[in-house]
Amino acid sequence: MPVKYKYPRPALTVDCVIFGLDDDELKVLLIERGIEPFEGKWAIPGGFVVPGESVDAAARRELLEETGLKNVFLEQLYTFGDPDRDPREHVVSVAYYALTNLAGHEIKADTDARSAAWFSVHDVPELAFDHDKILEMALRRLQGKVRYQPIGFELLPPKFTLTQLQKLYEIILEKPIDKRNFRKKILSMEVLIELDEIQQGVAHRAARLYSFNEKEYRQKEKKGFSFEL
Amino acid sequence: MPVKYKYPRPALTVDCVIFGLDDDELKVLLIERGIEPFEGKWAIPGGFVVPGESVDAAARRELLEETGLKNVFLEQLYTFGDPDRDPREHVVSVAYYALTNLAGHEIKADTDARSAAWFSVHDVPELAFDHDKILEMALRRLQGKVRYQPIGFELLPPKFTLTQLQKLYEIILEKPIDKRNFRKKILSMEVLIELDEIQQGVAHRAARLYSFNEKEYRQKEKKGFSFEL
Repeated sequence: MPVKYKYPRPALTVDCVIFGLDDDELKVLLIERGIEPFEGKWAIPGGFVVPGESVDAAARRELLEETGLKNVFLEQLYTFGDPDRDPREHVVSVAYYALTNLAGHEIKADTDARSAAWFSVHDVPELAFDHDKILEMALRRLQGKVRYQPIGFELLPPKFTLTQLQKLYEIILEKPIDKRNFRKKILSMEVLIELDEIQQGVAHRAARLYSFNEKEYRQKEKKGFSFEL
Repeated sequence: MPVKYKYPRPALTVDCVIFGLDDDELKVLLIERGIEPFEGKWAIPGGFVVPGESVDAAARRELLEETGLKNVFLEQLYTFGDPDRDPREHVVSVAYYALTNLAGHEIKADTDARSAAWFSVHDVPELAFDHDKILEMALRRLQGKVRYQPIGFELLPPKFTLTQLQKLYEIILEKPIDKRNFRKKILSMEVLIELDEIQQGVAHRAARLYSFNEKEYRQKEKKGFSFEL
């Protein structure tokens, strides 16, 4: 049944850019659209906001419906409001993004999505709407953020080597990092705990294990300390 | 004349948090609401997005209509999407913010605003809707941003003393800054030009004048340099 409003208003959607890390690549979760417009094209998962549900909740709901993904921490990215971004009418979209481990997430397309899959951020198909613009902004935001906030640690096992940590940053930032500088910088921040343990199951030259001292980091943060890589 | 849509949708507004700097204080531009809800209450200037105009354009238009302010660089802050933030219905608001000089801006209330005025950020009246939350987020964003981007220079005269620059940061960050550390840090970034001129019109101990080397800063930025105070 159609609804009536006193004044016209744009439609409102959410879009969720989900980055996934595997052992050597940064990926993004896309869906194949099952409906018009752009039927059969790949797109960022998302959909219309229902009045009465918060925009944040709409993002979580659409992500779950279209991809089966839940329990990821969605952060708001930007609101895209140009009148020509959707061929149907003026549709304003609030975009979100998240970074997660690829492992342990079961992907399953449903509702408006014909299929869902992870793509390398370097090898993304042509996207529907202005989704290439949204993806690009999300990638830049993620790369900016990991340099100033220790979000990468959540994607590592609780005990990790400095090489694993460096590799994680190299994958997200998409560039090689100088080993010496990286170690000096990360250790000088004093937010890692050097453990009395070394790597297991390696033949020789087993590396020292570290853990992230979140408590220490929170305390330093309160005193105005800035994490920076 | 009412409009009909196939599916219901939230209403969409914009809100503009305008910070203004004067000689010794950070202020914010507010309007007194001339209509319900919250008639007679102070609020952040803003209003409804008209379909077909971009959300950015709606923000500029509402700011101009309600306060007479134009030519400020509005940056998107965040989209507030809780269903209970407006007593009328579910209204989602895209908030923007800007920092400008108080001097040289003529303020004039019109349309839905009964009056418009600058308030010290430390002495803001009770605000309509969730505007205290929006204002607080804008203030935190501004304070974060000035530390990592040289936006403060646009608010100084082209030639300034280090004391003027320090004062600007102290006003925006709302805390005293150690003079020695500040000078060391800002000079070590090598983005200032030390001029062969000193302050005019001071009785004694006239200070050296500097200018911001924007070209040098842009080049450094391209090479990965981070401005940080």
